Amino acid sequence: MDFEFLISDLNKNKNLFQKAIGTDKGLAKIGDGIVNLAYSVAKSSYLTNNSKNIIRTGLKVSKTILSNALKNANLKDFAKNRANAHDLANTVEALIAYVWLNNNITLNEIIKLLIDNISGDLTIRTEEIKNATIAFTNLLNHLKKFLPRETKK
Amino acid sequence: MDFEFLISDLNKNKNLFQKAIGTDKGLAKIGDGIVNLAYSVAKSSYLTNNSKNIIRTGLKVSKTILSNALKNANLKDFAKNRANAHDLANTVEALIAYVWLNNNITLNEIIKLLIDNISGDLTIRTEEIKNATIAFTNLLNHLKKFLPRETKK
Repeated sequence: MDFEFLISDLNKNKNLFQKAIGTDKGLAKIGDGIVNLAYSVAKSSYLTNNSKNIIRTGLKVSKTILSNALKNANLKDFAKNRANAHDLANTVEALIAYVWLNNNITLNEIIKLLIDNISGDLTIRTEEIKNATIAFTNLLNHLKKFLPRETKK
Repeated sequence: MDFEFLISDLNKNKNLFQKAIGTDKGLAKIGDGIVNLAYSVAKSSYLTNNSKNIIRTGLKVSKTILSNALKNANLKDFAKNRANAHDLANTVEALIAYVWLNNNITLNEIIKLLIDNISGDLTIRTEEIKNATIAFTNLLNHLKKFLPRETKK
């Protein structure tokens, strides 16, 4: 992708700190699109691979899944203080958009990472939530190395 | 992308007809993700290129924009009979997903096509609707050559 300029202000900033990325509303909006598209294709692929039929589907990934993934991956430092589930989910979306716009991961790689980490029977809603949370936790763990380590004091 | 198998049933079908693609609900869900992500990045890029600041934003593209784009591009044959605006918008999403899964266009190319066809002041809502409709019409005109021509009688 050629859209790295959309985060040049964040990359240029020598005082770059974690919350500046994790609480950016525009990044979260772009990340929302990445998360939903990637999960839709990953879920369709997983269901198709475990079925005799081809199954195409799509789903808006719930705030619960994303906020729990952020906690499991120990990335709450990127979220704002006293963040609720909605805020934490936005932080996940912002972090994914940041790494994607920085060309450190492609959409294809995100989808494959999700597929590799999905398991169980996704047609049972509670099981889907549990397994999608694991898949997004593993995705975030993979993205960690592309995120800034310093926190502004 | 390596997800062409998700449309192998549509590609294998010798009696492939336009409405089978244009009314597929799963394709529309996947396409919804593509449309929103592509437009968010395109809008952010356009606004940033026309400003001194970097502007990141996102938007769910309205049914009005997409349904009018389908009519303008003369692709209503892909929609179901007596389709309302919601149905027509779903058809646009399904067609975009079909061409993307078939590897005939990349997300990067979709974004660039939208950027090249966006104009005007997007901060005025009525102007954004008018100009986004033109951009999606041109995108659909570009995708036409990758869509089946035959209609089942």
